[in-house]
Amino acid sequence: MGKSKGYEKHMSIVVVGSVAFDDIESPSGAVTGILGGAATYFSLAASYFTQVRVVAVVGEDFGAEHEGVLKKRGVDTRGIERESGKTFRWGGSYAENLNEAKTTYTDLNVFEKFHPEIPKEYEDSEFLFLANIQPTLQANVRRKMNGVRLTGCDTMNYWINGARQELAETLKLVNVLLINDTETKMLAGEKNLPRAAQKVLAMGPQALVIKHGEYGATIFFREGAFGVGRHPFRAPTLPLDEVKDPTGAGDSFAGGFMGYLSSQPELNREVLKRALFYGGVMGSFAVESFGTDRLQGLTREKIDERFQIFRELTHLE
Amino acid sequence: MGKSKGYEKHMSIVVVGSVAFDDIESPSGAVTGILGGAATYFSLAASYFTQVRVVAVVGEDFGAEHEGVLKKRGVDTRGIERESGKTFRWGGSYAENLNEAKTTYTDLNVFEKFHPEIPKEYEDSEFLFLANIQPTLQANVRRKMNGVRLTGCDTMNYWINGARQELAETLKLVNVLLINDTETKMLAGEKNLPRAAQKVLAMGPQALVIKHGEYGATIFFREGAFGVGRHPFRAPTLPLDEVKDPTGAGDSFAGGFMGYLSSQPELNREVLKRALFYGGVMGSFAVESFGTDRLQGLTREKIDERFQIFRELTHLE
Repeated sequence: MGKSKGYEKHMSIVVVGSVAFDDIESPSGAVTGILGGAATYFSLAASYFTQVRVVAVVGEDFGAEHEGVLKKRGVDTRGIERESGKTFRWGGSYAENLNEAKTTYTDLNVFEKFHPEIPKEYEDSEFLFLANIQPTLQANVRRKMNGVRLTGCDTMNYWINGARQELAETLKLVNVLLINDTETKMLAGEKNLPRAAQKVLAMGPQALVIKHGEYGATIFFREGAFGVGRHPFRAPTLPLDEVKDPTGAGDSFAGGFMGYLSSQPELNREVLKRALFYGGVMGSFAVESFGTDRLQGLTREKIDERFQIFRELTHLE
Repeated sequence: MGKSKGYEKHMSIVVVGSVAFDDIESPSGAVTGILGGAATYFSLAASYFTQVRVVAVVGEDFGAEHEGVLKKRGVDTRGIERESGKTFRWGGSYAENLNEAKTTYTDLNVFEKFHPEIPKEYEDSEFLFLANIQPTLQANVRRKMNGVRLTGCDTMNYWINGARQELAETLKLVNVLLINDTETKMLAGEKNLPRAAQKVLAMGPQALVIKHGEYGATIFFREGAFGVGRHPFRAPTLPLDEVKDPTGAGDSFAGGFMGYLSSQPELNREVLKRALFYGGVMGSFAVESFGTDRLQGLTREKIDERFQIFRELTHLE
């Protein structure tokens, strides 16, 4: 493992997801052909906490300079498959409120036939993150990685509505599901968030992380999972600098959350709570620049400084 | 003061605002002609913390049974003026997501010519809350209550857009402004929330409370106001039971916030932070029933129990 950074064996995480080129417009400007994709944002965010190993597919237009962005952060890129054709390309724009991306186009290209292969060298990783891809592919990867201690999983409305049966199978195999408010309510068929959370937990995961965008995230635990206690936990966030581009915020959140978890020898509620704060921290950095710029140039010190600010944000004496 | 409940003189608050009858539809059902209005929700919520004195106007259709709802909670109703005509009536409905009320009609009736008069007996109150009414009326009341220690103020998009000059005058006279995210950004002409908050604070108030609906609220302080420190503070909330009717949540938040403040001998940042939590608690109770039902039957014990839950919701060890 050429990029091991001296982490212990258990301190590594495999992420399976998209690598893409994005064309983005927001009230702060416009960029074209910048490096994006869930696996990219996740990897960069998690790289400040743990050894990251990425599984993805790219096309012939993916050059050494793109791979270099990941390598520079010590990310193991041996699981990035090259196929003939073009890399997944996504175009989106944000209106004034920045709350929702309007997709202008999605060219799946080589991603359309993505069949994730886990390199042999990745198999000793104890943590796994299944970014938003087709649920059956997620389940297959999870089954191949049978020795993992904890699996995190993302999904989206498209699969909740269109592949509910397959998603239900996947949910039985994962420990933590990370989705947003709307997805939670849709998956549960229930509008009250705490009740919806209980319904989702009954589908399989031991913990459900609901991402609230600029307001942080809440984690709900299944009874008895990761310790005791009946109440959920919330980590607040607050964008501190300009919000330039919300793309990748949720994937960066997942990277901070899962990255911190995979750096910890023990997984208990207190560790999951801290992970939730780190998720919010990485999400809040991600939106401060177009693409992955902000995520490329951080330090653990800057990250912990913001962790402290977010912690004090709700701390009563 | 017939309804003094034994509070000390300084422990009383005057609220000036609307008393109304509401017709409400939500996914949980429909009600007609129920008691509502900002001053009503505010008074009931604040009544668990302090002596409340209400200033409002009602019509001939406002009966003893309606006044009784307030009196039963010890609210001083001598400032409710009776005019010939009908009480302010509002009709609204909520769609599935419950986030925004769609107003079906607004019959101002006697409220159209509301000219708040402060009864002589109210003049020794040290706290004042100006609910959402025309900004110049707010300013006039504030000038009449010259001995107050702290004034809270609400407003809305209608005045921000249509009476900006008048509102600017009012903002110079108040200590704490309580508005939501959209109103903050609109008032400041700035989309980044922390920066928008600084712009609003420069208009006059020492503190700005931004209400985030189901996600709680954040308080921003002007440099040096109520103590030291450069960071904002957030109190999270989480609806614990069913959300039946969001009407009055913001006014109930203000009632909890201002009510708690006016029960405290000293006003420092720690007290304002606790007040923010109490605001969230009262808002979360308000939405659990149609109208004011839930707010009528609480106890301080139930309130403090939820305060503790919300406090632990974000508390890291």
